[in-house]
Amino acid sequence: MDAMEANQFREFGKTMIDYVANYLENIRDRRVLPTVEPGYLRPLIPSEAPQKPDSWKDVMDDIERVIMPGVTHWHSPKFHAYFPTANSYPAIVADILSDGIACIGFSWIASPACTELEVVMMDWLGKMIGLPEEFLACSGGKGGGVIQGTASEATLVALLGAKARAIHQVKKEHPDWRDADIAEKLVGYTSSQSHSSVERAGLLGGVKLRGLPTDDSNRLRGDTLEKAIKEDRDAGLIPFYAVATLGTTSSCTFDNLEEIGPVCNDNNVWLHIDAAYAGAAFVCPEYRYLMKGVEMADSFDFNPHKWMLVNFDCSAMWLKDPNWLVNAFNVDPLYLKHDQQGSAPDYRHWQIQLGRRFRSLKIWFVLRLYGVENIQKHIRKQIGLAHYFEKLVKSDERFEVTEEVLMGLVCFRLKNETNEVNERLLKRINARGTIHLVPSKIRDMYFLRMAVCSRLSEESDMEVTWKEVRESADDVLEKKVNGF
Amino acid sequence: MDAMEANQFREFGKTMIDYVANYLENIRDRRVLPTVEPGYLRPLIPSEAPQKPDSWKDVMDDIERVIMPGVTHWHSPKFHAYFPTANSYPAIVADILSDGIACIGFSWIASPACTELEVVMMDWLGKMIGLPEEFLACSGGKGGGVIQGTASEATLVALLGAKARAIHQVKKEHPDWRDADIAEKLVGYTSSQSHSSVERAGLLGGVKLRGLPTDDSNRLRGDTLEKAIKEDRDAGLIPFYAVATLGTTSSCTFDNLEEIGPVCNDNNVWLHIDAAYAGAAFVCPEYRYLMKGVEMADSFDFNPHKWMLVNFDCSAMWLKDPNWLVNAFNVDPLYLKHDQQGSAPDYRHWQIQLGRRFRSLKIWFVLRLYGVENIQKHIRKQIGLAHYFEKLVKSDERFEVTEEVLMGLVCFRLKNETNEVNERLLKRINARGTIHLVPSKIRDMYFLRMAVCSRLSEESDMEVTWKEVRESADDVLEKKVNGF
Repeated sequence: MDAMEANQFREFGKTMIDYVANYLENIRDRRVLPTVEPGYLRPLIPSEAPQKPDSWKDVMDDIERVIMPGVTHWHSPKFHAYFPTANSYPAIVADILSDGIACIGFSWIASPACTELEVVMMDWLGKMIGLPEEFLACSGGKGGGVIQGTASEATLVALLGAKARAIHQVKKEHPDWRDADIAEKLVGYTSSQSHSSVERAGLLGGVKLRGLPTDDSNRLRGDTLEKAIKEDRDAGLIPFYAVATLGTTSSCTFDNLEEIGPVCNDNNVWLHIDAAYAGAAFVCPEYRYLMKGVEMADSFDFNPHKWMLVNFDCSAMWLKDPNWLVNAFNVDPLYLKHDQQGSAPDYRHWQIQLGRRFRSLKIWFVLRLYGVENIQKHIRKQIGLAHYFEKLVKSDERFEVTEEVLMGLVCFRLKNETNEVNERLLKRINARGTIHLVPSKIRDMYFLRMAVCSRLSEESDMEVTWKEVRESADDVLEKKVNGF
Repeated sequence: MDAMEANQFREFGKTMIDYVANYLENIRDRRVLPTVEPGYLRPLIPSEAPQKPDSWKDVMDDIERVIMPGVTHWHSPKFHAYFPTANSYPAIVADILSDGIACIGFSWIASPACTELEVVMMDWLGKMIGLPEEFLACSGGKGGGVIQGTASEATLVALLGAKARAIHQVKKEHPDWRDADIAEKLVGYTSSQSHSSVERAGLLGGVKLRGLPTDDSNRLRGDTLEKAIKEDRDAGLIPFYAVATLGTTSSCTFDNLEEIGPVCNDNNVWLHIDAAYAGAAFVCPEYRYLMKGVEMADSFDFNPHKWMLVNFDCSAMWLKDPNWLVNAFNVDPLYLKHDQQGSAPDYRHWQIQLGRRFRSLKIWFVLRLYGVENIQKHIRKQIGLAHYFEKLVKSDERFEVTEEVLMGLVCFRLKNETNEVNERLLKRINARGTIHLVPSKIRDMYFLRMAVCSRLSEESDMEVTWKEVRESADDVLEKKVNGF
């Protein structure tokens, strides 16, 4: 028997389309978090690849037998952990085309459409969320956008660009200093509430990154940053990079850009904005007050693959001056050269990897098949659902909402109860198996996070979620009374 | 009008399946390299996203109007540039499922199936290519595999693991030395023929990487490495990392692992093997002589997304001791913790990014629906086609084959002609528009690379390719005679 031919692919592919449609339309019926134990899968399949091909029907049958028992259903309206990851029909279809073309867009010539659609889609996206012109390629300046895999990569890429810039600038003043001596003096800043990947970017990039304290509302403020910069300069260090977060993972808090921006600009510190989750909300003009000061940033990143219906991976990053990055890591062998170099971006210089997929198709399909209005509707609806859940929580005096609800995240806990009781509450909720939440902790206060994740979520889902929380609280508080 | 619903998705998705099947079945009819100029795409589409949704039929129509004129057809049998990138029907269907489930597998609990299938698929793959047990999770030791996005990332990740190990070890002897002091003394090695991403990994990782000279057959040899290590130790540096290539990009040359391995082991140098392209060939036992010595490596990487029919991105990396990596960059916030930590890998610690797709489905589908035998058949057929083309080139005495043909790459040039004439030959070939090649250069000798890329390639395609080369040579040599 031979490998799969086109006719079989037509059957198999269409069967899979139906499977995925059925899966998503009926996802509420599945237990959101699987009950399997580590190691569950290995005994279910052979220990080696088959010598001769299996039939595609056998493979289809194995999805429910082998895979689904171990899937955490991120797109269930009962999934409220982490932040949303996107999933939409237009994006899935775009990926079929991307897989069919299967070009590797490392340079313009390697597939001009892949580079050019990306340039224009990054302009579309940038305009949609109200980014200043300087970030957009259509402005005719140096700025432009690029699709990264994840916000973690964007943070690292920006850090590497900032590092290259700082070393270049310091060397002008001190031509005798070596790169390593300079790198050792570099210091970057972020808030103690920024994502774990920011700390990791510092480790990977081999530079110091200080986690600065936040104000009582968990925001990084300008004076805190200014003080740190001054301290470090006095200690002989070279401040070079700062990451501000718009929508932190723990509590969806927005750092104060209007204060941070001028401090960075005055001190020649590269300001990177990580708006991984919340950036999508800026498609609605009424939320743009939360990004006031963005014009002072050097780079900006948000994930359409989180809250803007474009399947992972699609992290949208803009740089005012990509040249720091391009020149820092430009390794240009003959086999990658082409005649049009310089007249269009060769995106391999903008990222860690060499290879890259045709990901802008997903953006194009999603923006066209939703339209800006439906994307705004999606964001507004999810924020509305978060406020609805907030109201339900506040209606029960045993609970408190611990953070202002601005986006699709509600942080809450049992009021007047210890962290331990709240930990028991979380465990109880997840053990019941109907919904899934993860906790967080700020300044030693443990709380629960309810993120509105699924694009299918409705008010009735919030009511189910609230019922689970309320009844779990009944159990936990009763056990506490009964001394369990 | 509202966003796309399930019923529309069924129609649209199935239409796209047919489109992709038609595209691939008729790909020979398309001009392999587009004729567009930089900037071609922007005027073809609106300058902003639409406010209201377009219809999916309009989007379908725009594929031929907007995208295809700018696509370089990597899967055409007339495409011979770079190295192949994979494209197969089973992988495309697997990606539909992966996009439908759309989980983010950063930890075990975030979707156990995503992590567990990856662990087992990396064992399947490792067994298929004859990797030593120590690399496999099923051995019960420390070793195991992980899917990286690209071989560039694998090289960087291995370098970071090696760096962490070296710093740890040096600190034991010199507890007073600071990380930065140690990092500055670290020196890694590779051959001057290794991929540009190896040099880039050194830049990104902030360590020195020396490109060592190769022997007359372009291979890195043990004595060269040993000499470099000795020199550097004498100069007070700390040798810590070496990258050996199995199948270089320029000429598909294999470094001499049997010599390099012991030198690395004796000198406590982490040996990483980059077999990005050629690693797939080890599925055929008759080629495993080219990886003799692999048991001395610390990490090994090859790309199923190049030559093993798994669509990009899928770079298969194995580590004998992943702990160096896991512990080096382990940032573990509360919202990512879970109860089963330690009993299964949390793959986010094995990679640069946090997020990751469900990519092992592609491996599973491809290995099951081809079977080992058909994958072997595919590799052998493509190597056979390269030898067929080699024979055609050798039949024309104007040409020489400049490198031994071992895999699916033939390096050739006009014999007794200058680099400039050979450059003209390449330009002429590409300008005719029927086939697409890229050149390379080793020790100032410019040559052309003919890579067998498409899984659809047949002997008749090699004959077309040869005709193009031969006739282009006629043109170029005639022009030379006529003084053009």
